[in-house]
Amino acid sequence: MRSITVELGERSYPIHIGSGLLQGIGERCQEAGFPLRSPLLVVSDSEVAPHFLATVESSLQAQGYTVVSHIIPAGEASKSLAVYEEVITTAIQAGLDRSSAVLALGGGVVGDLAGFVAASYMRGIGFLQIPTTILAHDSSVGGKVAVNHPLAKNMIGAFYQPSMVLYDLDTLRTLPPRQISSGLAEVVKHGLILDRDFAYWCRDHAAELLELNVEALGYALERGCAIKAAVIGNDEREHGQRAILNLGHTIGHAIEAVGGYGVFLHGEAIAIGMAGSALLAAKLGKDKSIYEDTVSMLSALALPVRLPAQYGEDELMAAMMHDKKFKEGKMTFIVPDAIGSVSIVNDVQQSSVREVIAQLKKEESPW
Amino acid sequence: MRSITVELGERSYPIHIGSGLLQGIGERCQEAGFPLRSPLLVVSDSEVAPHFLATVESSLQAQGYTVVSHIIPAGEASKSLAVYEEVITTAIQAGLDRSSAVLALGGGVVGDLAGFVAASYMRGIGFLQIPTTILAHDSSVGGKVAVNHPLAKNMIGAFYQPSMVLYDLDTLRTLPPRQISSGLAEVVKHGLILDRDFAYWCRDHAAELLELNVEALGYALERGCAIKAAVIGNDEREHGQRAILNLGHTIGHAIEAVGGYGVFLHGEAIAIGMAGSALLAAKLGKDKSIYEDTVSMLSALALPVRLPAQYGEDELMAAMMHDKKFKEGKMTFIVPDAIGSVSIVNDVQQSSVREVIAQLKKEESPW
Repeated sequence: MRSITVELGERSYPIHIGSGLLQGIGERCQEAGFPLRSPLLVVSDSEVAPHFLATVESSLQAQGYTVVSHIIPAGEASKSLAVYEEVITTAIQAGLDRSSAVLALGGGVVGDLAGFVAASYMRGIGFLQIPTTILAHDSSVGGKVAVNHPLAKNMIGAFYQPSMVLYDLDTLRTLPPRQISSGLAEVVKHGLILDRDFAYWCRDHAAELLELNVEALGYALERGCAIKAAVIGNDEREHGQRAILNLGHTIGHAIEAVGGYGVFLHGEAIAIGMAGSALLAAKLGKDKSIYEDTVSMLSALALPVRLPAQYGEDELMAAMMHDKKFKEGKMTFIVPDAIGSVSIVNDVQQSSVREVIAQLKKEESPW
Repeated sequence: MRSITVELGERSYPIHIGSGLLQGIGERCQEAGFPLRSPLLVVSDSEVAPHFLATVESSLQAQGYTVVSHIIPAGEASKSLAVYEEVITTAIQAGLDRSSAVLALGGGVVGDLAGFVAASYMRGIGFLQIPTTILAHDSSVGGKVAVNHPLAKNMIGAFYQPSMVLYDLDTLRTLPPRQISSGLAEVVKHGLILDRDFAYWCRDHAAELLELNVEALGYALERGCAIKAAVIGNDEREHGQRAILNLGHTIGHAIEAVGGYGVFLHGEAIAIGMAGSALLAAKLGKDKSIYEDTVSMLSALALPVRLPAQYGEDELMAAMMHDKKFKEGKMTFIVPDAIGSVSIVNDVQQSSVREVIAQLKKEESPW
């Protein structure tokens, strides 16, 4: 088992990564200080629960805990205030008290929803993350929890740190290949922003990562979590430097918004966005090898780096302007200076972004 | 103007108390660091808004702010998730961003609801309290914000500190006399738990307080806020010592629950509860003068100290057991050791509490 600590003063917490961890979750809850007399609530979704919920419940009950579970429909639509209220109702009916905890067993949707329940039930109770996707290595570090409002995503939420993250690599075996690649996009992103060697390591070990080799994947998730933890440790509430984690996300979010959520998976859209950021770097005078190497890394992980022709430049630009409320013709982008190093650039010309989008749609080399 | 600071490290904030402060709220918002380009949302209720909303809006607009207001129906029923979502919708439609702030103009209901909006909109934006009741001197210090769930009060919320509390004494002039006395119950409570001289001062200046004399009321609210601030500064998230603020509240909550909310005002129920706590102190061997003096203070403030005959002992006991989930026949009470000093007593016999309730219903002296 690999363990790292997210250092946030009195809100610090451990991330444990390894095989067979679900079976030991009861002990972990005691270790985290949740008293046996207070009921625990497991939140999971309709795709994850059939595989892993029984194991989690058994381990908790064997330790002596009272457990209640709430299963939400899989998918982003469950990140709503209505589902949130249903989970709160379950918590009240089960008698959760101020010493209780909510366990999020699932991917990003479950983590975000259950996290906001934990953050707000009785003004905040215990919270334990059990991510079951690679992508969730990203969302489970940093304490951003939220539900959506019909008018905008992630509008209602909190910064709320878990007491512990328990990452059982065995839960990843049920993921389809595209989901695996999509999750690895955020892993390699952490290398691209802050760790040159790790970024190249991801390319060189792409085959093992795609096969979910426990040793390689354990190391990759440990590094990914550790890099993210280092960034948020310096900027917990996203006042500044934390923005570097958004490498590829401005273009990526626009692709998701224009194409409709689900056409590209999140990591796929981000991958195209990261290729775009590297093209932008070249426009701003950085070395062209940044783009070449970024593309080789993403391609090795079976991720897209080009945009289908039907994505309109005007629509993508409009989506970006709306997303970030850019003013007066200047846009902010996270731009690589080299592999493993990025800058926040506040005065990117809209015309440059248009050129990048046009280039992302072409098959031939940009130079 | 009187000003005190609630010391909570990086979450410290000032409380300004005085006359004519509403007119200067625009300047105060700039002082608090809210940028002019970010819209502000004022939340108020149907009773308070007609008196004071125009003044607040004018001051903000004169300073250059864009302002949107959301008026909720007066009363506890507005502390619901449904009303919360409506306020969030207003905030999104008005384009509130991460540098925006929510201003709560009203009593405890408005403060609790608007505070939870501020705590959760985009994972937390600015929050400014403008209390318009005496009771709100209590709820505006401490950062407890929440809405109710149909199954239980204050179940959904956060600990979220305001950037500033602006207490304009002129807003209190529209309060009916019972509301004034009710608010003063929490003021004198702060003396009873931690400041002997202040408790007697409240008795000696009761007439001025009931007449809303600016000098006396300003001092009383400053002391009340300062004492509460000192307690929560040591225990922001209510892990221990903060419980002393609940003097009188176990019996008080039971009176509210059994009688129906609104029969006794909150401060009136707490006053009877504080008389009960002083009786309990006598049973536990403390000086009988604690009870005599407590009753004289409460009576001077036109607060009740006796329980009407129709309140059943069994119902009150059941409500208390439900409220606090007491186990195994022992109950926890905040019990005065003297005027200005209390202890948390964990092993109070149920039979003693029954005797106290019976005594509270009698007209004659307890000894």
